[in-house]
Amino acid sequence: MIEPILARRSIRVYTEEPVTEPEITKLLEAGMAAPSASNKKPWHFVVVTDRETLDRLSEYGSHWQMLKEAPLSIVVCGDPSISEKYWVQDCSAATENILLAISMMGLGAVWLGCHPRPERVGPTKELLGIPDPIEPLAVLSIGHPAEEKEARTQYDEGRVHRGRW
Amino acid sequence: MIEPILARRSIRVYTEEPVTEPEITKLLEAGMAAPSASNKKPWHFVVVTDRETLDRLSEYGSHWQMLKEAPLSIVVCGDPSISEKYWVQDCSAATENILLAISMMGLGAVWLGCHPRPERVGPTKELLGIPDPIEPLAVLSIGHPAEEKEARTQYDEGRVHRGRW
Repeated sequence: MIEPILARRSIRVYTEEPVTEPEITKLLEAGMAAPSASNKKPWHFVVVTDRETLDRLSEYGSHWQMLKEAPLSIVVCGDPSISEKYWVQDCSAATENILLAISMMGLGAVWLGCHPRPERVGPTKELLGIPDPIEPLAVLSIGHPAEEKEARTQYDEGRVHRGRW
Repeated sequence: MIEPILARRSIRVYTEEPVTEPEITKLLEAGMAAPSASNKKPWHFVVVTDRETLDRLSEYGSHWQMLKEAPLSIVVCGDPSISEKYWVQDCSAATENILLAISMMGLGAVWLGCHPRPERVGPTKELLGIPDPIEPLAVLSIGHPAEEKEARTQYDEGRVHRGRW
């Protein structure tokens, strides 16, 4: 029953096939179906398909090189002025929704962390014209998978505390 | 295709039917299938089914009263000493996975925010014996749904920026 959740894996190699506009819209619908504190929805999404922009973006993180092969990035951003305490949690839930939708639709992606590293946030904001006080939280590298991975959990009983810690 | 994501809604009313141990294990498998930065998995889960403990927990947040009817809470916790920069994001992704699994399995739940509010974090840690430096991020109120809600997105084109902001 929870197979679609276990099937989501980080996919870092892609074919050259583009992701279509209707597919991109589905991914954004999934993102904006996430819960948020007091339903404030403190999120924005920058959709990047331009080859040159993706290539430049790939240089801003130490493990972002797969963006050079990806036909699509969705940059999930948060607005702390809408929800100072919970924007990171809310935007992370939206990000996970998008990643699960990607997997359900036969696409592949990997979550590249941006916030809170200033050396990633600064150049990403400048490249994409993201205004203050908006923060880019997660850069998603997305495409059609050129690698296969098996479904899995990483269940660890040592992380489970029953009744109390 | 993304219907299971749109079908997840916040459910705040429950029947008296308990959630079984195999169901709880499935939820934790879903949580621990989430991605995490550098795969550090900075999460812990406290599983609460004791009536008295759930009743006391319900008093610690301004909108936590539905815990009085819930047969189960999973308290998702993070360990900042494992991943100082990304534990909130990673644990939020795990939380969203659990919420989606709950919905897929015909259960219902609502995400109650704990971190970073000290007036919620302190009493929750004390009640459940959560040691330093562990932080309770999210308190999930879980049960069999006694209310129905339709699937939906909250898609808003105004939050989408194509090419650049």
